[in-house]
Amino acid sequence: MKKFVNDPKQFVPEMLKGLALANPDTLTYDPEANLIARADAPRDDKVSIVQGSGSGHEPAHVMVVGKGMLDAACPGDVFAAPPTDYVVAAARRVNSPKGVLLLVNNYTGDKMAFEMAEEFADAEGIKVKTLFIDDDVAVKDSTYTIGRRGVAGNFFVIKAVGAASEAGADLDEVVRIGQKVNSVTRTMGVALTACTPPAKGSPLFELGDDEIEVGVGIHGEPGRARQKIVSADEIVDILLDPIVSDLPFADGDRVALMVNGLGGTPISELYLLYGIAHEKLVAQGITPVRSYVGEYCTSLDMAGASITLVKLDDEVEELLAAPAEIPIRTF
Amino acid sequence: MKKFVNDPKQFVPEMLKGLALANPDTLTYDPEANLIARADAPRDDKVSIVQGSGSGHEPAHVMVVGKGMLDAACPGDVFAAPPTDYVVAAARRVNSPKGVLLLVNNYTGDKMAFEMAEEFADAEGIKVKTLFIDDDVAVKDSTYTIGRRGVAGNFFVIKAVGAASEAGADLDEVVRIGQKVNSVTRTMGVALTACTPPAKGSPLFELGDDEIEVGVGIHGEPGRARQKIVSADEIVDILLDPIVSDLPFADGDRVALMVNGLGGTPISELYLLYGIAHEKLVAQGITPVRSYVGEYCTSLDMAGASITLVKLDDEVEELLAAPAEIPIRTF
Repeated sequence: MKKFVNDPKQFVPEMLKGLALANPDTLTYDPEANLIARADAPRDDKVSIVQGSGSGHEPAHVMVVGKGMLDAACPGDVFAAPPTDYVVAAARRVNSPKGVLLLVNNYTGDKMAFEMAEEFADAEGIKVKTLFIDDDVAVKDSTYTIGRRGVAGNFFVIKAVGAASEAGADLDEVVRIGQKVNSVTRTMGVALTACTPPAKGSPLFELGDDEIEVGVGIHGEPGRARQKIVSADEIVDILLDPIVSDLPFADGDRVALMVNGLGGTPISELYLLYGIAHEKLVAQGITPVRSYVGEYCTSLDMAGASITLVKLDDEVEELLAAPAEIPIRTF
Repeated sequence: MKKFVNDPKQFVPEMLKGLALANPDTLTYDPEANLIARADAPRDDKVSIVQGSGSGHEPAHVMVVGKGMLDAACPGDVFAAPPTDYVVAAARRVNSPKGVLLLVNNYTGDKMAFEMAEEFADAEGIKVKTLFIDDDVAVKDSTYTIGRRGVAGNFFVIKAVGAASEAGADLDEVVRIGQKVNSVTRTMGVALTACTPPAKGSPLFELGDDEIEVGVGIHGEPGRARQKIVSADEIVDILLDPIVSDLPFADGDRVALMVNGLGGTPISELYLLYGIAHEKLVAQGITPVRSYVGEYCTSLDMAGASITLVKLDDEVEELLAAPAEIPIRTF
């Protein structure tokens, strides 16, 4: 294994420490609960937004804590759901009279941790709701999931509920918006290589020198099919067709189009994919009016990419266009 | 080779097309000259800033065209200097009565192309000056360079001259600022893996499973030494010590600290490196007051990172803090 790492067990805490040191004015780091929070949270005038997940998906979610996005993120270890205690600590840290919304990508481990945390937080008198995100069209159930997985499309939910909460929406309204955005968001990904978790030290799965995994999960879970690598044009078709036909997206739709890198793919290739996907959508009468190219939800050092489409109406488009101030540029 | 690519010869044009499609309001793309320019360039009230280089270093430089940064970028093919014609076309495209500044990272091929372009542009009546950037402390001369190489520290020069030009500084003043920032900027990098150019289809050099290349160039040029991989702590020492002792940086200095990914390294590892570097500097009385973590100047899909330090005074710090609006978040 060749990585920038000291003790693999300290990989996540050392990353979080670096993140806090790089953002001293805006973020606070609580090592006890693996917790990154906005320095100005909680604010009495807004619902607080929290997301946790396994680590290894950075910038999701610790690097999208900030104005207009998350109030706190409580990651677990690499590819491991955060313990319930961490989630409760996060809800406590950003507890606001307007309430706390817990966002969860739909994986069985995360779901259990967050549902239990919601009960505990509620018992402490914290006004709390939970929202599950499941944008991945690749598979119905998977290694770690009953129902669809939550992947990069999650960012659009964060952005929309973050913007709504900054504008003063109440908890029910923020939940409505989050559910709405999740319901119009679809993603599918492809892996060119496996990823290597620091504690394992070797690739999580085997992929031949000329093979790709279509519909891969962000923990390396199997997708729809393993096949020989093909041209970028063909790969975009393989990803885009199931996304478009799923909602379905149709002639006349305005969309947000995201090409997300899975960690080991250079941004040059992501822009190349973006251009292809953009033109293929336009050819179907679907107009990308907001573009997102870069790394949003990764799988450590996996080479690969996912494509996400969000169907826009005026409400969603306005929420996505609201300002945000976070360590990485996303929106 | 596993990459998102159609015809390798069309890799750069297809990337540029994607970039332009993703940024229709702010960027224009001229396929004839491989040219990305601000949609609002030239502006009569500001010096125009142009940079070109080989492609494969994205986001450098095509993705940092925008308000407060570059007015145009004219890349060559992957790892190949732009032809003189492209540079002249870029100067022509953004020709302003206040003048045009050409920024060049110090490589022999780029230097030749830009010096000839400056002569041609001058002969056409364009008011033009050229500034060379050479922040890499790793080697004195290298495969493609006489004198030091220009690498990720280049971004600080772009940011400073971009900010000064937006504020209305004249060409001589913009050159003075660029030279000043270059003179206080130092970088060194390390590769964990080689990179694979699309047209070659195989890794550019060989690096053993447990080896790293210390002081690597952004085209895979040899650096100072090849050695066994060590801990992240030790790698930071290996990079930081030559940087600090070179200027030298000293107790009491305020600095900007950049940890730049070389293309294949996840941002989690970059933040881990940032935290280590930050603390090692503080221990020496050197205070990072501005932080930059992410990909700025890459080498295709190379796993690796570089560290850059910039010595700050009030003038430089203010220029770095000015607003910028570009496709990637950098500043």
